[in-house]
Amino acid sequence: MTAPEPAALAAQSVRLGFRLDDAQVADMHAAVAGAEAAAAALRARPVDPAAADPARGDLWTREWANRTDAWTPRASGAAPGSPSAAAPHLLDATGLLDAYRGGTARPGEVVATALSRLAGAHAALNCTIVALDERAAERAAESDRRWAEGTARPLEGVPFTVKDVLDLAGVPTTAGSLRRGDTPAAASATVVARLEDAGAIAIAKDATTEFAVGGPHPRRFGACRNPWDARRWAGGSSTGTAAAVASRAVPFGIGTDVGGSVRLPSAWCGLTGLKPTAGTVPRTGVVPLSWTTETVGPLARSARDVALLLSVIRGPDGTDPRIGELTPFAPPSVPADLSGLRVAVPGGYLTELCDGAVRDGVAALVTELVGGGATVVAGEIPSAAAALPIGYQVVFAEAAALHRFDADHWDDYDPVTVRRISQGITTPAADLLRALQFRVELQAELDAVFARADLVVVPTTPSTAPVLPDCTVRVDGVEHPLYAAQSRSTMLGNLTGAPGLALPTGFAPDGCPTSAQLIAPPHREGVALAVAAWFQERTEHHLRTPPLADRIG
Amino acid sequence: MTAPEPAALAAQSVRLGFRLDDAQVADMHAAVAGAEAAAAALRARPVDPAAADPARGDLWTREWANRTDAWTPRASGAAPGSPSAAAPHLLDATGLLDAYRGGTARPGEVVATALSRLAGAHAALNCTIVALDERAAERAAESDRRWAEGTARPLEGVPFTVKDVLDLAGVPTTAGSLRRGDTPAAASATVVARLEDAGAIAIAKDATTEFAVGGPHPRRFGACRNPWDARRWAGGSSTGTAAAVASRAVPFGIGTDVGGSVRLPSAWCGLTGLKPTAGTVPRTGVVPLSWTTETVGPLARSARDVALLLSVIRGPDGTDPRIGELTPFAPPSVPADLSGLRVAVPGGYLTELCDGAVRDGVAALVTELVGGGATVVAGEIPSAAAALPIGYQVVFAEAAALHRFDADHWDDYDPVTVRRISQGITTPAADLLRALQFRVELQAELDAVFARADLVVVPTTPSTAPVLPDCTVRVDGVEHPLYAAQSRSTMLGNLTGAPGLALPTGFAPDGCPTSAQLIAPPHREGVALAVAAWFQERTEHHLRTPPLADRIG
Repeated sequence: MTAPEPAALAAQSVRLGFRLDDAQVADMHAAVAGAEAAAAALRARPVDPAAADPARGDLWTREWANRTDAWTPRASGAAPGSPSAAAPHLLDATGLLDAYRGGTARPGEVVATALSRLAGAHAALNCTIVALDERAAERAAESDRRWAEGTARPLEGVPFTVKDVLDLAGVPTTAGSLRRGDTPAAASATVVARLEDAGAIAIAKDATTEFAVGGPHPRRFGACRNPWDARRWAGGSSTGTAAAVASRAVPFGIGTDVGGSVRLPSAWCGLTGLKPTAGTVPRTGVVPLSWTTETVGPLARSARDVALLLSVIRGPDGTDPRIGELTPFAPPSVPADLSGLRVAVPGGYLTELCDGAVRDGVAALVTELVGGGATVVAGEIPSAAAALPIGYQVVFAEAAALHRFDADHWDDYDPVTVRRISQGITTPAADLLRALQFRVELQAELDAVFARADLVVVPTTPSTAPVLPDCTVRVDGVEHPLYAAQSRSTMLGNLTGAPGLALPTGFAPDGCPTSAQLIAPPHREGVALAVAAWFQERTEHHLRTPPLADRIG
Repeated sequence: MTAPEPAALAAQSVRLGFRLDDAQVADMHAAVAGAEAAAAALRARPVDPAAADPARGDLWTREWANRTDAWTPRASGAAPGSPSAAAPHLLDATGLLDAYRGGTARPGEVVATALSRLAGAHAALNCTIVALDERAAERAAESDRRWAEGTARPLEGVPFTVKDVLDLAGVPTTAGSLRRGDTPAAASATVVARLEDAGAIAIAKDATTEFAVGGPHPRRFGACRNPWDARRWAGGSSTGTAAAVASRAVPFGIGTDVGGSVRLPSAWCGLTGLKPTAGTVPRTGVVPLSWTTETVGPLARSARDVALLLSVIRGPDGTDPRIGELTPFAPPSVPADLSGLRVAVPGGYLTELCDGAVRDGVAALVTELVGGGATVVAGEIPSAAAALPIGYQVVFAEAAALHRFDADHWDDYDPVTVRRISQGITTPAADLLRALQFRVELQAELDAVFARADLVVVPTTPSTAPVLPDCTVRVDGVEHPLYAAQSRSTMLGNLTGAPGLALPTGFAPDGCPTSAQLIAPPHREGVALAVAAWFQERTEHHLRTPPLADRIG
């Protein structure tokens, strides 16, 4: 029940081809020892061997895909409304498309403004790895022509940015690491290609923590700051993407989420961000980190945009082995009211470490939903506390298996990347397989909640954005380690495959945004997005802009 | 690159909840050390991280399911012929059904004879765990009625036996282990239920090595002998099933195959046995051993029976998470000739350890196929040698993860079970994940062969049946350890998911049967079965009966 000694970990690491120095082994030992209690507790839990096939964890989302009992609101018939008339850079993608359609904005100008604003944001925040000015301008000219000719595609001329773990043809994918060369990607990631095929225009590759797993200070590019307060971190790992969208440089960006990496920066930058259902958005062309938990998702400024983007990026591509046939996703209309909607607001681990301002935001959201006709029902997730350490166990075992192929060069990695991944080097297969069985147990707990509730509402993350350089998380004035706190309610979705939508709930006394997460059953993103769109029609949290947005562009 | 020391393995085992004594740890260390070279070689092989998702290994069979380029013979229009008129117990299931249809045999009598013959076989061979006389007689009476009424189902009244790792409602499933109690199974395994729903009648649960992985001498029931020579082993792990079918007690039985456990006893008992394509036959109700490699399959007396049985047992059951929608399998008719058929006959590891009599059998089969119009094409599988140790690595890691839940009681296990499974206890997750990537590399090698060949022909196993009690494998007079030799050409199919059909090719000077394996691409069992049926129309190896068959019943 005690973790292996440093010498034993060192010997196993050498056996597996890693060359760690004494300090790295000491870090590894501390990490393994810290995770041992959770691993030991999991080993002691009973299991039914006949039902223990790890593949069952993938079956859950398929089973939900065949269910037809989703909450269906009394429809208003209305598409989600636009924010009040504003400068194009303040519009969301849907609003921008309306402006293009109405002739009050043109892609050429909008993309030029976006590039200019992004340069300003980058100067202040360090959010961009490479801006694609020339390429974007060419595409914007084509979009101008298409709007003029009446051949505009669904996202024609909408600028966006791409977390630099997704390939964009002709541009290197750095993954924020010194270990990635400057060889241009041969093809775009499926998601990027789908967005561009729909007319959207990538204008930049965004900063990320190293390999989407390292610390806030990647060695190659340094920290990315928060547009709401440049002393703070934008949040990770989709750091630069959140900063670019929140700065009002682009209406949306594309990130990845292995433990909260779309939802956390969305929360800390006041954005609406989605981790979709596992196995629905292809990961082809994404620098892999964790096969079981990783998901590609949008960071945007409104729920209606997220719905629109999901309809474009979702569905099999014939290459990602985890994505089967799917019914297409139709963006929901705004509900007339929320009658019949049942929401569970679990406590326990999911709220026990949570800043007052964040809790207030969740409460205000729930009050608004109840005012619209929703009912709060009981619903707890007893194993939520284990989801974080066991999720990390899966992520780091998979990440270590992947980065073993570069084991001779870990000295070039961000030390935080090494510290985190190294704890997966000697994870026993029996532990990994037990963790994958735990997925199924956790899914069963969610099923029990979703038998009574259409959505689960939790804080997205316990605090407002962490303060650089140390990035501890501050809850009611007390500091907590970043990695023990930030993903308390997000890893649940990565481990089970359930979708989670982060949406702004207001602002803390420190001036920074707060966020709640709507967790839906698999393939029920539409319910979360309809409810969030309804909420955003009645609130303006998502429309507020950081002071930086007025100083750039 | 050296294996962990015994003390390190012991410490890790304790951490994971196992209680092994010094001798068990010494065994474990020897096993891990023996497998280290193969594991180290695999770790050193390059891999493309972007393509390393272990789920790709499951995708391969799905991809083949969509291909339409299978060899299609010039049809003779004829169903496979019947063996010459004979006593009912000498008929295969197809022949027996013809006899029922023609009124020359009746299920009541046939089942009574089968039970009587099985008792005789058991007395000589120790092949049966429990005979189901009363239950079988009742069902036989129903079959008599149905044949009389004209409501006979596709397998109406055909007796069969069931390896005792598959549940049969109302009967305990012992898995050959002292650790399994005597609680009756609540429901039948999907495969058993499908066979019985089609009218077949289970008359016994068959001996098996412990948990389908232990040695030839399970502590609970002892060794099962070979009907061709009672000094020899029937082969494992579907020991009793092979013995019952070869003794002409029943026309077929159902077994499971994790490294050859259907094909090896088929080979050593002169039977035609199939390991179907992974993910096509549900494992619901089967005592699990290895999620990645295990397959349920029939042991029978003719290829045409195997085809008939496959059409009944195949297809999703809504419970086994690894089985998606499938096109139904249609038993093939007998080809008029084999023109256009391309067969690869690889050498290297797959034949370098192989007794002369077995090699002669393969050569005779190939000569016959060429005589029928087939072409021999080049085709080698360079990584075949790694398939065995790496396949075992996967099997034992998964088995150890499963049997961890009984870790306090390993002293009640067959010592061979402990010796084999224990080497998976501390397998690093990174090694398991690398092994699962190797599946994909091996599949690519098979694809290269299947681009030129419709079938691969190899020895099923290097020798005739091992001699009890030690069960070493004798190749041209030289003894080799059982587990290093028996699965040399079978594990390939378990690790990749490709189907493999063992069929009799003749007899060695020792009087025991020899066997060849036809390996087909996924979902191409029909090609292997058509070719085997064609061969069996021209040869009588599969019709020869062991001397024991004349002395029982």
